[in-house]
Amino acid sequence: MSMAADIRACIFDVFGTVVDWRNSVSRDLAAFGADKGISGVDWLAFAVAWRKLYQPAMEEVRSGRRAFTVLDVLHRESLVTLIGEFAITGLSEAEIDHMNRAWHRLDPWPDAVAGLTRLKSRHIIAPCSNGNIALIVNMARRAGLPWDCVLGAETARAYKPMPEAYLAACRMLDLQPAQVLMVAAHNGDLKAAKAQGLGTAFVPRPTEHGPDQKTDLAADASVVDIAADSFVDLAHKLGC
Amino acid sequence: MSMAADIRACIFDVFGTVVDWRNSVSRDLAAFGADKGISGVDWLAFAVAWRKLYQPAMEEVRSGRRAFTVLDVLHRESLVTLIGEFAITGLSEAEIDHMNRAWHRLDPWPDAVAGLTRLKSRHIIAPCSNGNIALIVNMARRAGLPWDCVLGAETARAYKPMPEAYLAACRMLDLQPAQVLMVAAHNGDLKAAKAQGLGTAFVPRPTEHGPDQKTDLAADASVVDIAADSFVDLAHKLGC
Repeated sequence: MSMAADIRACIFDVFGTVVDWRNSVSRDLAAFGADKGISGVDWLAFAVAWRKLYQPAMEEVRSGRRAFTVLDVLHRESLVTLIGEFAITGLSEAEIDHMNRAWHRLDPWPDAVAGLTRLKSRHIIAPCSNGNIALIVNMARRAGLPWDCVLGAETARAYKPMPEAYLAACRMLDLQPAQVLMVAAHNGDLKAAKAQGLGTAFVPRPTEHGPDQKTDLAADASVVDIAADSFVDLAHKLGC
Repeated sequence: MSMAADIRACIFDVFGTVVDWRNSVSRDLAAFGADKGISGVDWLAFAVAWRKLYQPAMEEVRSGRRAFTVLDVLHRESLVTLIGEFAITGLSEAEIDHMNRAWHRLDPWPDAVAGLTRLKSRHIIAPCSNGNIALIVNMARRAGLPWDCVLGAETARAYKPMPEAYLAACRMLDLQPAQVLMVAAHNGDLKAAKAQGLGTAFVPRPTEHGPDQKTDLAADASVVDIAADSFVDLAHKLGC
């Protein structure tokens, strides 16, 4: 753990790592559906289907086929597609906007706020998420996530796992990559960060994708510098 | 005060409005000078001279003659010039870096933290400063400024008073300009914000430039929507 002494900032994947998007989105949409008298929709399936359109939408931007576009816009396009596929009718534009902002109302995992608060006592803490600034700010205010600033795809104008997404975060903090620890529940995210010279910490979220999750159940030792049980355990391992 | 009901975010000028750059920079440099045994330098004059090079340095970027360059870099170039003019010799690159980061160590005006904390209870609060992200983050951590996120020149890639500096902040918060209140101790900053449709609030800082200050002693009624005595008074006027 000699690297811990050099770490000045911890940057975090958000969807899945800090917050539980699957249960939060489905609960939020189910409440909206009940309020609007929409019946016969499996909102958990809807949430999972929405998330499945996330990578293909960003890939249009990563590939250069589309100019940089913030995630709220990509999410809304996917949402309109799914509203059609799930045969939901009669929604106003304002109601679709409200549904889209379900991603601004995600609940944190139970250890997230306590762990971030401890980590902040000694380190800069910032999201390095594909979520846009408005989404991350609204989420943080609702959930009590005490970020020092909001970094990620919109400030980098590049979606993870592109190198620029990680390098821009380091540059904007005026730190070397080796002084920055990328924290995620996804080994692929950490592999991409490590390739740019960042330190890496894995925190497992074994139910992010539900009770039958098969992926990212444990740290991949080839890319993970610090394996922690939770954000609080990570703070402990970093001496906070 | 009917506009107060529409305001969702308050964005702030920082140098002079939130923090006292003149006394902070001169104190910081004087302590450094004493530590290094540098004598015969008027550090208050040095700080004022440094600040005088601020607008011309940014103007190179605003005019398009120079690609966007963060303020830490502009500050350091000005610092090297002044070290020569003040005939200071024998400094290492690391010592010059330390001096440059005096701008990361500015003290807030006495009402700033209490006022921001109250404003944050109901509104998004963010800097809209020409300072770069690392500078503003390091300042906030040291001074206890509870920003929700860091907006400004580096995220907009434009220096105030260019329209994009204000409009990018609104766009990144996914708010209309009329939902955003620009707070500053400088009528010129507020005039530029108002021209883009933002609300404006003036808080006087009558000793920013010293005891003989002649400018910005009072709000210019033609550009100011809310005139407050302090950040705490502003919070009160916004119903926080």
